[in-house]
Amino acid sequence: MKSFLDENFLLENATAQELFHEQAKALPIIDYHCHLDPRMVAENHRFRSITELWLGGDHYKWRAMRTNGVPERLITGEASDWEKFEAWAKTMPYCMRNPLYHWTHLELKTAFGITKLLNPQTAREIFDETNERLQNDPNMTARGLMRHYGVELVCTTDDPVDDLRWHKQVKDEGFDIRMLPAWRPDKAMSVENPIAFRGYVAQLAKAADMEIRSFQDFTDALERRHEYFHAMGSRLSDHGINEFYDEQYNEAEIRTIFNDALAGKQPTEEDVRKFKCHMLYFFAVQDNEAGWTQQFHYGAMRNNNSRMMQALGPDTGYDSIGQSQTALAMSHFFNRLNENGQLTKTIIYNLNPADNEMVATMLGNFQDGSVPGKIQWGSGWWFLDQKDGIERQLNALSALGLLSRFVGMLTDSRSFLSYPRHEYFRRILCNLVGRDIERGELPFEGFEQERIKQMIKDISYYNAKQYFNF
Amino acid sequence: MKSFLDENFLLENATAQELFHEQAKALPIIDYHCHLDPRMVAENHRFRSITELWLGGDHYKWRAMRTNGVPERLITGEASDWEKFEAWAKTMPYCMRNPLYHWTHLELKTAFGITKLLNPQTAREIFDETNERLQNDPNMTARGLMRHYGVELVCTTDDPVDDLRWHKQVKDEGFDIRMLPAWRPDKAMSVENPIAFRGYVAQLAKAADMEIRSFQDFTDALERRHEYFHAMGSRLSDHGINEFYDEQYNEAEIRTIFNDALAGKQPTEEDVRKFKCHMLYFFAVQDNEAGWTQQFHYGAMRNNNSRMMQALGPDTGYDSIGQSQTALAMSHFFNRLNENGQLTKTIIYNLNPADNEMVATMLGNFQDGSVPGKIQWGSGWWFLDQKDGIERQLNALSALGLLSRFVGMLTDSRSFLSYPRHEYFRRILCNLVGRDIERGELPFEGFEQERIKQMIKDISYYNAKQYFNF
Amino acid sequence: MKSFLDENFLLENATAQELFHEQAKALPIIDYHCHLDPRMVAENHRFRSITELWLGGDHYKWRAMRTNGVPERLITGEASDWEKFEAWAKTMPYCMRNPLYHWTHLELKTAFGITKLLNPQTAREIFDETNERLQNDPNMTARGLMRHYGVELVCTTDDPVDDLRWHKQVKDEGFDIRMLPAWRPDKAMSVENPIAFRGYVAQLAKAADMEIRSFQDFTDALERRHEYFHAMGSRLSDHGINEFYDEQYNEAEIRTIFNDALAGKQPTEEDVRKFKCHMLYFFAVQDNEAGWTQQFHYGAMRNNNSRMMQALGPDTGYDSIGQSQTALAMSHFFNRLNENGQLTKTIIYNLNPADNEMVATMLGNFQDGSVPGKIQWGSGWWFLDQKDGIERQLNALSALGLLSRFVGMLTDSRSFLSYPRHEYFRRILCNLVGRDIERGELPFEGFEQERIKQMIKDISYYNAKQYFNF
Repeated sequence: MKSFLDENFLLENATAQELFHEQAKALPIIDYHCHLDPRMVAENHRFRSITELWLGGDHYKWRAMRTNGVPERLITGEASDWEKFEAWAKTMPYCMRNPLYHWTHLELKTAFGITKLLNPQTAREIFDETNERLQNDPNMTARGLMRHYGVELVCTTDDPVDDLRWHKQVKDEGFDIRMLPAWRPDKAMSVENPIAFRGYVAQLAKAADMEIRSFQDFTDALERRHEYFHAMGSRLSDHGINEFYDEQYNEAEIRTIFNDALAGKQPTEEDVRKFKCHMLYFFAVQDNEAGWTQQFHYGAMRNNNSRMMQALGPDTGYDSIGQSQTALAMSHFFNRLNENGQLTKTIIYNLNPADNEMVATMLGNFQDGSVPGKIQWGSGWWFLDQKDGIERQLNALSALGLLSRFVGMLTDSRSFLSYPRHEYFRRILCNLVGRDIERGELPFEGFEQERIKQMIKDISYYNAKQYFNF
Repeated sequence: MKSFLDENFLLENATAQELFHEQAKALPIIDYHCHLDPRMVAENHRFRSITELWLGGDHYKWRAMRTNGVPERLITGEASDWEKFEAWAKTMPYCMRNPLYHWTHLELKTAFGITKLLNPQTAREIFDETNERLQNDPNMTARGLMRHYGVELVCTTDDPVDDLRWHKQVKDEGFDIRMLPAWRPDKAMSVENPIAFRGYVAQLAKAADMEIRSFQDFTDALERRHEYFHAMGSRLSDHGINEFYDEQYNEAEIRTIFNDALAGKQPTEEDVRKFKCHMLYFFAVQDNEAGWTQQFHYGAMRNNNSRMMQALGPDTGYDSIGQSQTALAMSHFFNRLNENGQLTKTIIYNLNPADNEMVATMLGNFQDGSVPGKIQWGSGWWFLDQKDGIERQLNALSALGLLSRFVGMLTDSRSFLSYPRHEYFRRILCNLVGRDIERGELPFEGFEQERIKQMIKDISYYNAKQYFNF
Repeated sequence: MKSFLDENFLLENATAQELFHEQAKALPIIDYHCHLDPRMVAENHRFRSITELWLGGDHYKWRAMRTNGVPERLITGEASDWEKFEAWAKTMPYCMRNPLYHWTHLELKTAFGITKLLNPQTAREIFDETNERLQNDPNMTARGLMRHYGVELVCTTDDPVDDLRWHKQVKDEGFDIRMLPAWRPDKAMSVENPIAFRGYVAQLAKAADMEIRSFQDFTDALERRHEYFHAMGSRLSDHGINEFYDEQYNEAEIRTIFNDALAGKQPTEEDVRKFKCHMLYFFAVQDNEAGWTQQFHYGAMRNNNSRMMQALGPDTGYDSIGQSQTALAMSHFFNRLNENGQLTKTIIYNLNPADNEMVATMLGNFQDGSVPGKIQWGSGWWFLDQKDGIERQLNALSALGLLSRFVGMLTDSRSFLSYPRHEYFRRILCNLVGRDIERGELPFEGFEQERIKQMIKDISYYNAKQYFNF
């Protein structure tokens, strides 16, 4: 019986172990998509407690606690840090086989050097020890944790109206880890809520330092902001969409929809789709002109619980995996760009694994030889960012595309403790490749041995470094 | 080479074996969803022959025989018990890798102690031996078999118009195994066939001992019957639906659809959906008020072969796995209940495994901390009730929810010989967990060892006992 | 560590190895669906170079090269044979874990006896050695390769207007390997492009040696051609469809759509579906009357890249896996045939593995005991023709149907070097069965041992031989 979470965790044979320890482990981290709060980096945030760090905003843990029968008071309510932590510690043993069980203990081990397992018996001890470290250890801060984990670069996720002041501050101070903004203009497409949209347009006008009285002004303002993001080092956009759009429209219609929305008029569902279709195209062209990479996260079904949406707002653990038949629209969207020579580097993330093979083969339709792996399939996203999800993505990508060209892992996280997910991913990758080698399904001598070692290093680090060109 | 079907069947390592033999094996069975005929329990039915017991109504076996080129006469036709059994015995060796191969030999072994394998050479011998036992062994009856397998409680599947006389008889006699009814009101939603619906309403009126002249009467009658079921110990409803419904309607429309149907008028497809949407909501509210658990089996495509439907009726082996895009409707349905504080304990069963991850993440949207595992994902249903289907359900539930809180297995069967499926399930469960432990993916010392042992016992038995509160 | 691609490649235990080497390996190949060019067989084509043989039309390799950043000139452009081969050799090491890595080295090994691995260092050597053999070895021709691989029979894929002259020539010459045509009338349904359709009808008239002035003439001409194909040995049709059709129409409408198309009028989408629905039914009836087997390949999304479609035409690597909700239409289509006693032997191939279980259970709805395995689930198609895809198809077929009755593998290939895919398939099959035996999930003594050996032989060869009755 292998020990739990030992140095060869997830590495089932000697080749896998060698690949991980000798090729992958020591490489820096390029976390090209995450949701860190840039202010916390700028201010080198120190955490009040392990409760703030772990439970302050982690809707994965909140969902697990609710499923385990924990009342909301102990999750997002008024309970004390200790009460919440204790409730989490009681839930932990019920999370066995859930990725939270691995994440949590990897985080305890790699950040704090704690190898005790979290359960009701160890809760107080771990609470006190981690809090002591968080409060007193000079390296246990936002920046300290990033350094500790060997982070080289992170891309945050930012709205076009964001002034990026924290990015600027971090850059000006010469922090040795680069923190770049990424462009996430979801709100600039959200015409389905005209009141909020009008407010957003006002914010955008202010951010771009211009008046917005027409759709032309609107896109001009977005251009200005895109240029500002570019100047601040951004090379990456991201879009959260239910599905891809494939609508027939002309620009006059788009202008009308825009003007009506500003006038507070509720658009039809069809008009919403037309507007989003156009804006998504607009952003894609913008990214292509600037030489950026565009990302699409599609297929989430958000805010399913309207009662809790009312009480807690979005991103509080009430989202799930949706269903869509979006293949044709996706194909048309990329084809339209490609037809016009406007298709930039692209990463597609699906949330429903039933779409895996569809997406994995979509890539090949638009690979054009200009950049290795120009069209990428994003690493297992959200619910799929766990062993089974990662393995399925890696295996389908291998069978239907070129694993060697994969830009690899990202945390997609709000937490400064999520970097062990890169280690987790690298272990899984090395294990799959090592298993193939041991089974005689891959060669491991001479030229091919070197290639495999390089492939592991590429997927862990160098592919991303080369692809994004930050 | 491991022996076929030995005591460590499906248990690939020592930890898995220990978990099964020491924790899971001896626990009683709570079979909370099945299709046993309550009359056979009440009358303690003795089986004419192994043919009646095995081939009398088992459409899984019928499908296999048809696929194997067996003519219908030897399946559902006029052939003798021996002829049918022989045809089945000839088919058996062609069923290798199909769950029928495992079920059949598990049943022979656990019910009759026969370890010979069924094939044309052993057919006569097994036919004679099993028949002799069925005809003469005092324990080889409906009740005897239930006792033999350690059944503690079963829930049958019953129509609201059923008088539950057999349940009453069994209860009054003081049978040591509880047999409770469960409420399956599919026919009360089936307005798509107004003639049959009108007949059903008449049956309902009689059962509820009242006149039904309006939609209000109709729901009043259903209330009365629900109360009667409750008094008879029912705590569980079940709905067989193609997909979830998400329609806009008002109650006046529902009344009109109801009245039109009683008048023999064919409703539109939209009206059918509105009616079903409303009734499903009505039943959900009813269950919530009574503190019951509601079950939804969705996604079957039934009666695909109209010629054989004409000849043999429904449930004769002509159903298959459907496709749907029902995530949004499902979310809206549960959200509407939740919004109104009317969402009771719920179990969702999907038939298409492409929906697995969607369903597994839907649960989390409505877990509210009131009951551990309040929203459950049903165990692999029908076509998925086999090793691969069970493993996929357990793995997805683990990765996306809390396996620890799972209420576990049910037979969903018409047969008194299906109880070894609980053993089958427990072996698979122990094997997955044991494998994780041996690989170092789960800890197995001290507190955590006890937790894992308890988890195995909980999923095998205690979770169901606690959750349903029969 | 097992050596790469040794004699026990993909065979992980002794039982699997024994099954493959003793039962499967030596059996002939019935390649009942492929896209070989019959002219190359008739003329016993000799290949100019390994570049022609490998890269002349293999869009799998083209996609891999484009993904790897290779410019089009070195793929389908004007570059020399050596330049293209070198570009492919440079891509090969980046294809690790893609089936191309296995296919390529299996082909080198089994056709040329080359066990060196293809990479930039070996490229020149392998280029020279293979070219020398292709140019000088008397057995290194189209026919020589077919003999070398033990091919007994192939079915090509042919349009009804094809004169089958090459088939006739091969037959008349008495070539010891049978090459039969198969009927693929996709163009006879393609009314969505009336100009091309009109041209096609003219070709058909010529082929059938009659005038086509009405829809009746059109179907008469198709009847004549079907009879001609039958006389030429064809016993198999094939249809490439996006999805199944389930339309309401009458024959008058079909005639009108046909006449309008001939007049150059663009039909509506609905009319296109009606026409295809009718034609698919017509072809199914034709096949049933002639005692043929019909094949349906559904679910591809073709020609996604319109720019490259313009430049290179179809089948150049710009197709991918589509999404559909076709279960109900599929069921209705087969049910209508079955209802009328017109459902012939049928093989269904899905491209999206998310449909696997739906298709695997569809079969059972229409198995009628007349022919073992009458309705078949086609072997992993196109993107799914690789280890993972084949295993998933075999496992789902096993769990949901009768693996024993499976007609097995086909290459679906344009290449004379693709026959090792049969070996690949047989290895995977033997490995799955051998694994089950070693784990004690299948018995392997006496009667059952013989049955398993026969099952391996049946799936490798005898089932196809018996089923198609060529």
